[in-house]
Amino acid sequence: MKKYSTKTWLLTASDLEEILIQTGPNRFIDLLIERLTRGLENFDSSSLEIPIRTGFNYQAAPEGLVEFMPVHEKGKEVVLKVVGYHPHNPDLFDLPTILSNITTYDTKTGHLKTIMDGVLPTALRTAAASAVASRAMAKPGSEKLGLIGCGAQAVVQLHALSRLFPLKSIWIYDIDPKAMDNFQDRIEGLELDVNLIRSDIETIVDTVDILCTATSIGVNEGPLFEHYNCQPHLHINAVGSDFPGKLELPRNLLLESTVVPDFREQAKIEGECQQLQDTEIGPDLKQLISQPITWKTIQKGMSVFDSTGWAYEDQIVANLMEELGRALGVGQGIHLENVSSDVKNPYHFISKPVQV
Amino acid sequence: MKKYSTKTWLLTASDLEEILIQTGPNRFIDLLIERLTRGLENFDSSSLEIPIRTGFNYQAAPEGLVEFMPVHEKGKEVVLKVVGYHPHNPDLFDLPTILSNITTYDTKTGHLKTIMDGVLPTALRTAAASAVASRAMAKPGSEKLGLIGCGAQAVVQLHALSRLFPLKSIWIYDIDPKAMDNFQDRIEGLELDVNLIRSDIETIVDTVDILCTATSIGVNEGPLFEHYNCQPHLHINAVGSDFPGKLELPRNLLLESTVVPDFREQAKIEGECQQLQDTEIGPDLKQLISQPITWKTIQKGMSVFDSTGWAYEDQIVANLMEELGRALGVGQGIHLENVSSDVKNPYHFISKPVQV
Repeated sequence: MKKYSTKTWLLTASDLEEILIQTGPNRFIDLLIERLTRGLENFDSSSLEIPIRTGFNYQAAPEGLVEFMPVHEKGKEVVLKVVGYHPHNPDLFDLPTILSNITTYDTKTGHLKTIMDGVLPTALRTAAASAVASRAMAKPGSEKLGLIGCGAQAVVQLHALSRLFPLKSIWIYDIDPKAMDNFQDRIEGLELDVNLIRSDIETIVDTVDILCTATSIGVNEGPLFEHYNCQPHLHINAVGSDFPGKLELPRNLLLESTVVPDFREQAKIEGECQQLQDTEIGPDLKQLISQPITWKTIQKGMSVFDSTGWAYEDQIVANLMEELGRALGVGQGIHLENVSSDVKNPYHFISKPVQV
Repeated sequence: MKKYSTKTWLLTASDLEEILIQTGPNRFIDLLIERLTRGLENFDSSSLEIPIRTGFNYQAAPEGLVEFMPVHEKGKEVVLKVVGYHPHNPDLFDLPTILSNITTYDTKTGHLKTIMDGVLPTALRTAAASAVASRAMAKPGSEKLGLIGCGAQAVVQLHALSRLFPLKSIWIYDIDPKAMDNFQDRIEGLELDVNLIRSDIETIVDTVDILCTATSIGVNEGPLFEHYNCQPHLHINAVGSDFPGKLELPRNLLLESTVVPDFREQAKIEGECQQLQDTEIGPDLKQLISQPITWKTIQKGMSVFDSTGWAYEDQIVANLMEELGRALGVGQGIHLENVSSDVKNPYHFISKPVQV
């Protein structure tokens, strides 16, 4: 019998940072955009099971949720992201709004193959998804990007989009002036040649070619704006709407736009698609990416990528992180699962060895 | 702002073994039986959310499943066990049938508090649950224990029951003669003063006071026996039935017995309760334990504990492991989650520090 490896590959927060530093952030995000694009082009719904995320949400102070986002690639693996969303984390605990981890399992045995931080991968895959969607839907050569909400997501959205578009001016707004004050510092490491312009929401919406909304607007407090006189080709990556009742965009704008959800069934519950009938929703992301012939038409009009977060994106980023980590020797193998030399004895460590 | 600890307490396989060795297996299982009993007595359904486990199961070679078992104690924590069940693991890969891990989350923030092996805790909590159920339902002073299926579960079932009953003779059967051959060796460390008697299923059923069935019988291949002429007070811990169509006991025996499920809704789908109508099922375990006045009557007749595995048991064993681990200094704190000093910058490690 060939001995099965029972080590779990552990990638901590600093391991993932090390992978990005050694790979180079630009090369990493380019790789991720490429993998996600290929994954969407080749999406095989007969081999992938992706249920809607489920979990627990609570209003009890402080409000939040812990949810489970699994994906099953038949004959290969299960990937699970556990994600916590607690909007008061930055203010109350100096913690990110989103905390999470990702685990992957070999479906031959149920063995836990890897465990890694999910915070950085979530940020990166969300940004990569916006880039992939924008390449299909936004005006090629777009130079003006708007960021409403200048938190963690805005940094990586800007980074990913800068790899596909010749961005020149970045129009920013945040309800917290401090987030605008230090945005320049936070993107310093990206070494982008762009102008940052502080503005108000209405001006941004009416000016830019591409807009990313990534706010913590409260349930039933949206949309972020009502009236608009935007570019005829405006493309919006709507990232913040990911909870029932949490909406960033006005319904009228959605009706004028091609609306592409990342995961249709989930977006109808948690995303901007909450505001739409089935017939008012466009193709989903995997349909869009597998039909490049439709892109040119969509690029001429208004479009919205309704990004609620999809476990398939987590699988792709987790696999890339693990692959790079193993190649670079970053991370460590640990014996997490109790797998004794005598599988029929949970007390092998207090008993004498069994003759087999 | 008080700084929130963002370390995750990691308990590997050998850490959990160390906790058991330092605590002493007897003291550990006594503590666990005690905690579980108190937890069931004080079970507060208004503060605990425990959904039926869900996940992926597959027939593709080799067959198996990966499932998610969460519990939410409101205002405190979420505990998640991910469990793989792959019955061909021992034969194909020299791995245990069950592989799993347990993670716990602070619901204030979503922070991952602990990650630990789930293999050993699953074995221990399943055994402790049988002990708790048997104390309520089996004849006090029972001396004869039957074990049908002599795998990993049988070892810990025997151990837990030996702490509550003056066991003298242990009647064993396994479809694999080797599992009977080396059973004595596997329980050596428990230092029990018992006689092991190899027997056949029918003799065991008709002889013993308490019976534990923990087999890997296939779907639609049960029950393990049809006819019986057992003790009028026979109590059975039915551990093996935990999958649709997987059954160990004949329906007639269930109808003659008080049948107590660990988790009613799940047992009706996966346990012996699949064979019963609602009205044919007795109180569930938490009802039974909180009503000791009913025990004496139940002890006089036949009874079955339909043990399918319950996330609440996982929470209790995980909390006990973590508590002992921290007290003994076993385990280590790791920075798994990417939590930077600048929560609004996922790229803090490539940017210059932000002035706050």
